[in-house]
Amino acid sequence: MPTKKLGQQTVALSAPPAIIGHANVVGKKEGDGPLAASFDHIEQDDTFGEKSWEKAETAMQKMAFSMALDKAGQSASNLDYLFAGDLLNQCIGSSFAVRGQTVPFFGIYGACSTMGEGLALAAMMLDGGFGEFAAAVTSSHFCTAERQYRTPLEYGGQRTPTAQWTVTGAGAVVLAKDGPGPHVTHVTAGKVVDKGIKDANNMGAAMAPAAYDTITAHLRDTGRQPSFYDLIITGDLGVLGGDLLLDLFARDGITLNNYDDCGRLIFDPAGQDVHCGGSGCGCAASVLTGYLLNGMRSGKWQNILFCPTGALLSTTSTQQGESIPSICHAVAISAS
Amino acid sequence: MPTKKLGQQTVALSAPPAIIGHANVVGKKEGDGPLAASFDHIEQDDTFGEKSWEKAETAMQKMAFSMALDKAGQSASNLDYLFAGDLLNQCIGSSFAVRGQTVPFFGIYGACSTMGEGLALAAMMLDGGFGEFAAAVTSSHFCTAERQYRTPLEYGGQRTPTAQWTVTGAGAVVLAKDGPGPHVTHVTAGKVVDKGIKDANNMGAAMAPAAYDTITAHLRDTGRQPSFYDLIITGDLGVLGGDLLLDLFARDGITLNNYDDCGRLIFDPAGQDVHCGGSGCGCAASVLTGYLLNGMRSGKWQNILFCPTGALLSTTSTQQGESIPSICHAVAISAS
Repeated sequence: MPTKKLGQQTVALSAPPAIIGHANVVGKKEGDGPLAASFDHIEQDDTFGEKSWEKAETAMQKMAFSMALDKAGQSASNLDYLFAGDLLNQCIGSSFAVRGQTVPFFGIYGACSTMGEGLALAAMMLDGGFGEFAAAVTSSHFCTAERQYRTPLEYGGQRTPTAQWTVTGAGAVVLAKDGPGPHVTHVTAGKVVDKGIKDANNMGAAMAPAAYDTITAHLRDTGRQPSFYDLIITGDLGVLGGDLLLDLFARDGITLNNYDDCGRLIFDPAGQDVHCGGSGCGCAASVLTGYLLNGMRSGKWQNILFCPTGALLSTTSTQQGESIPSICHAVAISAS
Repeated sequence: MPTKKLGQQTVALSAPPAIIGHANVVGKKEGDGPLAASFDHIEQDDTFGEKSWEKAETAMQKMAFSMALDKAGQSASNLDYLFAGDLLNQCIGSSFAVRGQTVPFFGIYGACSTMGEGLALAAMMLDGGFGEFAAAVTSSHFCTAERQYRTPLEYGGQRTPTAQWTVTGAGAVVLAKDGPGPHVTHVTAGKVVDKGIKDANNMGAAMAPAAYDTITAHLRDTGRQPSFYDLIITGDLGVLGGDLLLDLFARDGITLNNYDDCGRLIFDPAGQDVHCGGSGCGCAASVLTGYLLNGMRSGKWQNILFCPTGALLSTTSTQQGESIPSICHAVAISAS
């Protein structure tokens, strides 16, 4: 078998798997934002009818997965693998969403990069000959994340200028070994990068160097110029982190004209009081499964480099004075 | 490419990857147990010289990874992938252990099944043609796990008869695409199974049905009899969970004569006051990387089915009255 490896971090898939179904579910605030038309389901009640925020997140994830399967014309029992994870302690959003589903399950943890990690692994499993169908699912919920990572909502803490707003949203992608585009063509697996940022309310700054590292590796490994892509899009660097990423590339003499960030797109910076933008696993996941993949299907973009970023901190690591290790996985998607 | 899939859950690797390095690091109590001779490093100070238990766990995981790389004659920067995870909130044991290492990283969460999940994914990545070398690492620490999952150590709570003792230990395995045995030959990916057990101090009972489900799937998919294996070994079902597993098979008329459990083996039930045995990601990982793989190398066993189990609960899910979703991944290892 010829090697698929380009450098240490990138693989070129020999038979790029097809994205045959994708769906998302978001909360009310996301539904009030500029991407409203791209969401499959906007729930007006962020409890999703459940008795706890964690159960609400599980319900949301199940709904997105079910809708993606329907669009793909598949059932969970037909899948070879499901990769899922979330931000909750011990990833209970995913474990409980998968409970009762007849599907081989690999739990993953990549913080807000989870959709990139899941999509990468699902695509590699199919390209590697290990099955016909695989899925990647993730979610975040403003109310579970805030009380877990920062302060309880009831505390009413003031948010700092660099803070981002955790997206209440879930996204699911179903891949097939064969089928029409969009296709996953390349995966660049990220390394853990930590430049010493310790402010848990400034995750954009913590994650920007990881995005720079992975995108640089991708361009080096593939020999592609940034202009090859119609869009290079990070997950949730937000306003500040996105600017830092552009600065880092500018130092190398590279201008990213075709850059954007899911966290910048999902909320209206003027009217929705989200400071530096959206964040959370559900941010990149709901933007990918709506705005981005719908846009590719409608001919808006031919080639996208989807680069979700994750801040691998916990409240414990923050309390112990640690800085924030970060990661970014890049997945190249071609419309045809 | 011929399909490698046997049924929904199992793959037969076409070019079984070789286990070229494996190492473990454990704490004092584990070093006082019956498997002492199989550990590479027994630390007498469970703080590992660090200022917090979480940092101790990170130090332990780094040490095990480094020793496994040394034994394999490899460096981290030569690896194509590292799969790692642990029990800590947001898997910080692994994220911080990987920080500063030049290696593409996929974070995984499978609770105590993590070594099975990592080993499975690492082997599949190599068999799929995505690289030459990959590693799987995991850990658990009694002091981080107890205060996170149950009660703070300082509380001095009485342990129930079904409780297990979280192993302070880390294990690392380095795989190569080609090389002499032991080889990873088959992977059976587990489904989430939840039979309604709600007692977070009785994880053996919660996980036994998941082990039964996966081992049954493995035997069905491969057409093998249990007697094909010289040893079928679960991760940390412990005394009660192991007995329940044997009961479940007995109902099908199947006697597992060749069954054991890492959680039963790692401590002395008479002298170490561990109630139902060991548990934690580090339990299966440190037993695999010492007792089991050393035993295969010395000719004690030709074929092993390694089946670590995970209880996918969190304190939040327990506090919200939820039962315990569980999972088991099975990895078939051949000595030659």
